[in-house]
Amino acid sequence: MNSELTLYGYWRSSAAYRVRIALNLKGLAYRQEPVHLVKDGGQQHQAAYRELNPQGLLPLLVDSGNAGGELRIAQSLAILEYLEEVFPVPALLPADPAQRALVRSLAMHIACDVHPLNNLRVLQYLKTELGVADEAKDAWYRHWITLGLGAVEKGLEAFGSKLSLGSRPGYLEACLVPQVYNARRFDCDLSSYPRILDIAARCDALEAFRNAAPEAQPDAQ
Amino acid sequence: MNSELTLYGYWRSSAAYRVRIALNLKGLAYRQEPVHLVKDGGQQHQAAYRELNPQGLLPLLVDSGNAGGELRIAQSLAILEYLEEVFPVPALLPADPAQRALVRSLAMHIACDVHPLNNLRVLQYLKTELGVADEAKDAWYRHWITLGLGAVEKGLEAFGSKLSLGSRPGYLEACLVPQVYNARRFDCDLSSYPRILDIAARCDALEAFRNAAPEAQPDAQ
Repeated sequence: MNSELTLYGYWRSSAAYRVRIALNLKGLAYRQEPVHLVKDGGQQHQAAYRELNPQGLLPLLVDSGNAGGELRIAQSLAILEYLEEVFPVPALLPADPAQRALVRSLAMHIACDVHPLNNLRVLQYLKTELGVADEAKDAWYRHWITLGLGAVEKGLEAFGSKLSLGSRPGYLEACLVPQVYNARRFDCDLSSYPRILDIAARCDALEAFRNAAPEAQPDAQ
Repeated sequence: MNSELTLYGYWRSSAAYRVRIALNLKGLAYRQEPVHLVKDGGQQHQAAYRELNPQGLLPLLVDSGNAGGELRIAQSLAILEYLEEVFPVPALLPADPAQRALVRSLAMHIACDVHPLNNLRVLQYLKTELGVADEAKDAWYRHWITLGLGAVEKGLEAFGSKLSLGSRPGYLEACLVPQVYNARRFDCDLSSYPRILDIAARCDALEAFRNAAPEAQPDAQ
């Protein structure tokens, strides 16, 4: 497969962080195009970027080696599914449909019901449009993380003390580790989630995750 | 495949509506277990349901015919992916990975960046914890729908005047039609989205969609 991959992201974007992990786990080379979420009123709102991605969010993966013409994929999980289909080895998902469903269920709980509520544009709306004070905004942030990680911790029981691919991390950990990063950044108490903390520690020791970390990115400040 | 499917849902739950459409498109029989989102303080919060689904959200699909033991899948898109893998015909997704990526990108924009912000628990938090007035809450609701549907309308250009599977609807329409239903329920102006309106009208004429509609469910009020 002749692919040339470019990732439009931002060092602290949790969803871009997921894709960096997935690309690294698959050993795929990619070029980075930083899109600054705050500078210039948010570069993701500028015409040049919205032309590429009308959703106006990060990340965006561009595959200029796609046979049918340049392919632009928005949405981190749509990108993960694409990478899994086009570059199947090493796999990010288990082979068994039931196990795949459990992995996607937990990953999507993070990607659908935790992260979007704490996305920058939502926090900005709370502050600017609804006049929510910083303290209440931080409580909102922690509320959704606490609810979400509690459910994920419970769901992880099905994996015993293993990673989602046995001895290897994949799709699930690519979503979980960036969420843990965000939780720590906002001083959430994670002591009730020993399974999550164990997984995060094991992943953070791996090169694929260390190289995907926000602070390791070229646009980190 | 010896499957016995039970869907825990609620007639007006947009995410449960997606799964009903998918099950109907695949011609799969299923039993419904209504979980009332308001009665009894929200039956999704009760211990009996949380034991089945620690995420405490709808829908939940239980497959009691799964070879490895009863399988419980939370998250509507994880359910759609499972159904696609276990009951591949008729397909909900195109065969080509690039086309699949475009479908998932639009569907996930709805499922990740529009719907979760307008979920009942979020509206309740805005009102109860943040003291947001009804008018501002409705503006919030319409704001995220307007942003999201605008991006989807633009993304639909890639499909020309076709449905996501050419002459047939699938994964994309299963996410789009329930979102249009919600938008109408909250009096959003949809006149700027002719492609979306066309798709919704074509889908609403099909039995699989009509039988999945909120008002057609046994627990509709």
